[in-house]
Amino acid sequence: MSYPLGIIAGSGPLPVLLAGQCRSQGREVFIAGIIGAASPDIASFPHQWIGLGGVGTLMRALRRHKCEEVVFIGAVQRPELRHLKLDWGGLRFLPRYARAALGGDDQLFRALIGEFESQGFRVSGAHEYLTDLVAPGGILGAIQPQREDQADIARALDVARAMGALDIGQGVVVRRGLVLAVEAAEGTDAMLVRCVSLPPGLRAGSSTRHGRRGVLMKLPKPGQERRVDMPALGITTLRLAAEAGLAGIAFEAGGALLVDGPTMIREADALNMFLIGIDPNRSSV
Amino acid sequence: MSYPLGIIAGSGPLPVLLAGQCRSQGREVFIAGIIGAASPDIASFPHQWIGLGGVGTLMRALRRHKCEEVVFIGAVQRPELRHLKLDWGGLRFLPRYARAALGGDDQLFRALIGEFESQGFRVSGAHEYLTDLVAPGGILGAIQPQREDQADIARALDVARAMGALDIGQGVVVRRGLVLAVEAAEGTDAMLVRCVSLPPGLRAGSSTRHGRRGVLMKLPKPGQERRVDMPALGITTLRLAAEAGLAGIAFEAGGALLVDGPTMIREADALNMFLIGIDPNRSSV
Repeated sequence: MSYPLGIIAGSGPLPVLLAGQCRSQGREVFIAGIIGAASPDIASFPHQWIGLGGVGTLMRALRRHKCEEVVFIGAVQRPELRHLKLDWGGLRFLPRYARAALGGDDQLFRALIGEFESQGFRVSGAHEYLTDLVAPGGILGAIQPQREDQADIARALDVARAMGALDIGQGVVVRRGLVLAVEAAEGTDAMLVRCVSLPPGLRAGSSTRHGRRGVLMKLPKPGQERRVDMPALGITTLRLAAEAGLAGIAFEAGGALLVDGPTMIREADALNMFLIGIDPNRSSV
Repeated sequence: MSYPLGIIAGSGPLPVLLAGQCRSQGREVFIAGIIGAASPDIASFPHQWIGLGGVGTLMRALRRHKCEEVVFIGAVQRPELRHLKLDWGGLRFLPRYARAALGGDDQLFRALIGEFESQGFRVSGAHEYLTDLVAPGGILGAIQPQREDQADIARALDVARAMGALDIGQGVVVRRGLVLAVEAAEGTDAMLVRCVSLPPGLRAGSSTRHGRRGVLMKLPKPGQERRVDMPALGITTLRLAAEAGLAGIAFEAGGALLVDGPTMIREADALNMFLIGIDPNRSSV
């Protein structure tokens, strides 16, 4: 393929990582950086800054750079509608946005993808390119989940599935069978910070190895549009999970991006924490 | 009934309120105050302080005061098992506790009630006594939920039902169709504080009256043991909901205790917020 890959960049390191990988493989890129979200580092690639409401500007820029294929990557905060600066393309999309926004993030992403596809773009998933980052199955580091951890993983899976079915969020923390926290609009890291400040009777307790107990589960929603909202896990999340006293992190094999896998595994080993990729369709883990 | 009512008192104003009401109606009481939870105000009534693990001491005290009927009222933090000072009664209860604790609060409460009943006590619900505090149906103050609020109430009801079925928590905040927060171990007030600190695009936004939009829903879990864990709502919760920019609070008619109803309604009116008791079994609200 000779046309450049259009990267619509939200926050975090993944957009630049993707661009760098494409470049090293000889594929050109054009990055559309969402103002207020994307990292300034996108400036080392052909790029343009675009406001969130600038759907028309965005599509024109992509066409000008001959992008037939686009990837949405990195997080973007839901805008406040009245602060959104809409261009004509954005206005055209507005009714669909407004309807979809009432149903949760997933419906919103589907509407967004639908809009791009109806305009002739092919929308690919970041995971189709960043294949090295896609979480494998099984235990990743040196630390095994214990029997008590398996019970927490199983309960977290039940809860995460129910949350996902209602398009609420991707993350849940379970410790000794008790649901400590459920992620909604605040995001995974904020949820973990909250776990740190729970009363000691909930947070710490009759513990296995080094006082660690409980699990963070991140799961894509069932039927989730993975081309836009694949769960990502990195060092920050691992460190917050450690601070919350958790014994490990579970995610779907093939259903999460590990931003810096090797470093993350080394650090998890040092922290005595497990990292496990599970198959959510199997009844036991 | 001539025997005194045994009040097992957790935190908050309700235990003393219940005791005062009994006294004014000529019914004697004996309060067992959970150390670290109950208010010092219980000292104006016949009382004894009891540690959380002191199930044997508690039952002996109740028997000494000729209590045949007990009411559990007020919140108690889940104890850290290794810090629990267990007496023989507590030790006897421990296996049942440990098993039940893995299933969530509701299973734990059922086990506790079962233990008291098997020892010959009758366990009543606080709402059977504090009938004036039980939330009625319909709109309580002067403010009506708007059409957008009705949609948020309907979605919050779906989410709260799913949360309840998994024994996760009683509270959820929905705004413009988006689930802002789900309550797990942190409690309703902490959940609302978190909503206050969400990004403005989520928290405020294209708004109805005075910028208020969104709803806090508190719902007892389906099949929940209401004798122990009836949702309670008071001024603090109302004020936090106001600070989070919400348009109102919804609860189950007959399924919540309003701690100081008349004051709460006055304040809700002044804040331009609705208070509505709904029937969760009706499909529309």
